[in-house]
Amino acid sequence: MTRNHARLTPLAESLPSSVPFVGPETQERLRGRVFAARLGANENVFGPSPKAIAAMQIAASETWMYGDSESYDLRNALANHLNIDPAHIMLGEGIDGLLGYLVRLIIGPGDKVVTSQGAYPTFNYHVAGFGGDLVTVPYSGDHEDPDALITKATEVGAKLIYLANPDNPMGTWHDATRVQRMINSVPAGCLLVLDEAYVEFAPEGTAPDLLPDDPRVIRFRTFSKAYGLAGARIGYAIAAAPLITAFNKIRNHFGICRISQSGALAALEDQDYLRDTILNVAHARTRIDEIARENGLTTLPSATNFVAIDCCRDGDFARRLLGALVERDLFVRMPFAAPQDRCIRVSAGRPEDLDAFAAALPEALKVAQAD
Amino acid sequence: MTRNHARLTPLAESLPSSVPFVGPETQERLRGRVFAARLGANENVFGPSPKAIAAMQIAASETWMYGDSESYDLRNALANHLNIDPAHIMLGEGIDGLLGYLVRLIIGPGDKVVTSQGAYPTFNYHVAGFGGDLVTVPYSGDHEDPDALITKATEVGAKLIYLANPDNPMGTWHDATRVQRMINSVPAGCLLVLDEAYVEFAPEGTAPDLLPDDPRVIRFRTFSKAYGLAGARIGYAIAAAPLITAFNKIRNHFGICRISQSGALAALEDQDYLRDTILNVAHARTRIDEIARENGLTTLPSATNFVAIDCCRDGDFARRLLGALVERDLFVRMPFAAPQDRCIRVSAGRPEDLDAFAAALPEALKVAQAD
Repeated sequence: MTRNHARLTPLAESLPSSVPFVGPETQERLRGRVFAARLGANENVFGPSPKAIAAMQIAASETWMYGDSESYDLRNALANHLNIDPAHIMLGEGIDGLLGYLVRLIIGPGDKVVTSQGAYPTFNYHVAGFGGDLVTVPYSGDHEDPDALITKATEVGAKLIYLANPDNPMGTWHDATRVQRMINSVPAGCLLVLDEAYVEFAPEGTAPDLLPDDPRVIRFRTFSKAYGLAGARIGYAIAAAPLITAFNKIRNHFGICRISQSGALAALEDQDYLRDTILNVAHARTRIDEIARENGLTTLPSATNFVAIDCCRDGDFARRLLGALVERDLFVRMPFAAPQDRCIRVSAGRPEDLDAFAAALPEALKVAQAD
Repeated sequence: MTRNHARLTPLAESLPSSVPFVGPETQERLRGRVFAARLGANENVFGPSPKAIAAMQIAASETWMYGDSESYDLRNALANHLNIDPAHIMLGEGIDGLLGYLVRLIIGPGDKVVTSQGAYPTFNYHVAGFGGDLVTVPYSGDHEDPDALITKATEVGAKLIYLANPDNPMGTWHDATRVQRMINSVPAGCLLVLDEAYVEFAPEGTAPDLLPDDPRVIRFRTFSKAYGLAGARIGYAIAAAPLITAFNKIRNHFGICRISQSGALAALEDQDYLRDTILNVAHARTRIDEIARENGLTTLPSATNFVAIDCCRDGDFARRLLGALVERDLFVRMPFAAPQDRCIRVSAGRPEDLDAFAAALPEALKVAQAD
């Protein structure tokens, strides 16, 4: 009956009502029990700068006003911080929101997009949502494979290539030289989507120099990870000015929360706190590695705020282990695709979060081994 | 050079980099001076409930977590408040964000959409953004014309009809009987988009009963207006469950700010404060009417938090008056289309805001008359 009035487009009709990720609150409702540690969504448990919290508390009383549609102050502060012109920056409702806009700008039915098998599902969701044709190449040694991505993009005439550096869900990374070489190889007619959501956690020399006039690449960064503001929904794109301007053709101009703009600005200004966070995260990675090894597992090196623990068995084993951890009130996730799905992915937690993980892991492993 | 790599879709290529509204902050930057009174965006200067502000201040320290992708607590509280099933409710990044999703679900290139000449530009922006073909009918006596909208929709085979009740930018409204009669006349294959952003300000008997299984209409409401949370970006749609579910095909699932969800929930729970706001707004409307009459102008009756002041001359005169008010640091707007553009539109302000307006208006009128 509804369909007689709400006539969906053929594309919309064909799409599943899917969600790229089932959120922890949803899982808690399904379980009927809250998680003891929230280590599954690569949220930054160390939280934002107290100065960002204070700024948001002040902004809360100004919420009767729409946010600035240009995010002028934040955009200029970012430009200053990155030493580029603000014309190269577009703010949006998280990287997820911006990826949706980018895909909408470029991808229509049948257009080809290349990504790695098991890379970011939300990007794939947007590609499917605009009728794009997703082509995948395998990871190579738990790294995304720049050469294979470029080769495949050339072969199929792709309009977009997706690369996360550092990578999610594996935490691995390529150095700036390798990524710049990839940028230099992007074929004509194709744009590299370089997702740098985790880049602040990575070693010096991971991000290629910002050459924002380069038309071959658009880079995405966020306040959700290192800056600890996942719930605020602020990401940004860095690209050549004409491409940045194109977002104004379609974006929800007043879509960014006013409070979030204030929080992100204050977070950006507190680089000391960011440095502390990065240290805290590095300690947490070390601790996750220790816990894994105490249990006979290994870990992958990580340039992010999470660690992929290699269970050294197959995906079914890792899924059983994940299930047993979730049963023990640990919110963790794992890669979707083989062979990376032999791992589970644990976000950097506070000492008490990782103590809970350390306490649960031995029993969970026993359950997974017994099944 | 950019276009060689970022190959926009033909539709995206054809779109202007437009913005439906130039925000007040943008205007302030262009002017080099802040506004003395912010009465142009129909923001609610009385602000949200203090309980909402307090809830957001608490939530600010929890912003390291993504918001609940299902907005479960808020959605259920709304369902309870409206006495409908939560399956009929979809939360989104303001009505603007939800309108974008709806248009994306239903409108493809060449699909027809009917609205009134001079009605909500952001809806038109989304229709253009997905290649839809917008067909307009005139207002009738400063009211949107339900019969003309239905007739035109039938004639052109429209997939969507837009009606705001109460109307923006005129503030006029139809009673529930008239709107229900319109719903009953929606032709097969067509969906009525009933924008009720201002409905809390309207007299009893303005909103038709919620019959959320009715497949002929989708209704939009918001926390931006009566609840005073424009900057938080929370709107919601009410419709038949299959259409609500369809939003999950394409929406940015984690797009709503976590702080905003908390604020909206607390605002909803403070209905006493809402009643006070509605009284304050009613007083402000009366005051705007007095100011207008003291200056030889008239006003249109309004069921919203703004008043259209009829300058009783043509659009050029009203535009000159608006310019003179802006020069005197009053942020106000006016209808875009004739003949409604003989009016200026003033949002309900606090006494001090309206005092500033009252002080500026006589001089501004002199300037407009002299030009």
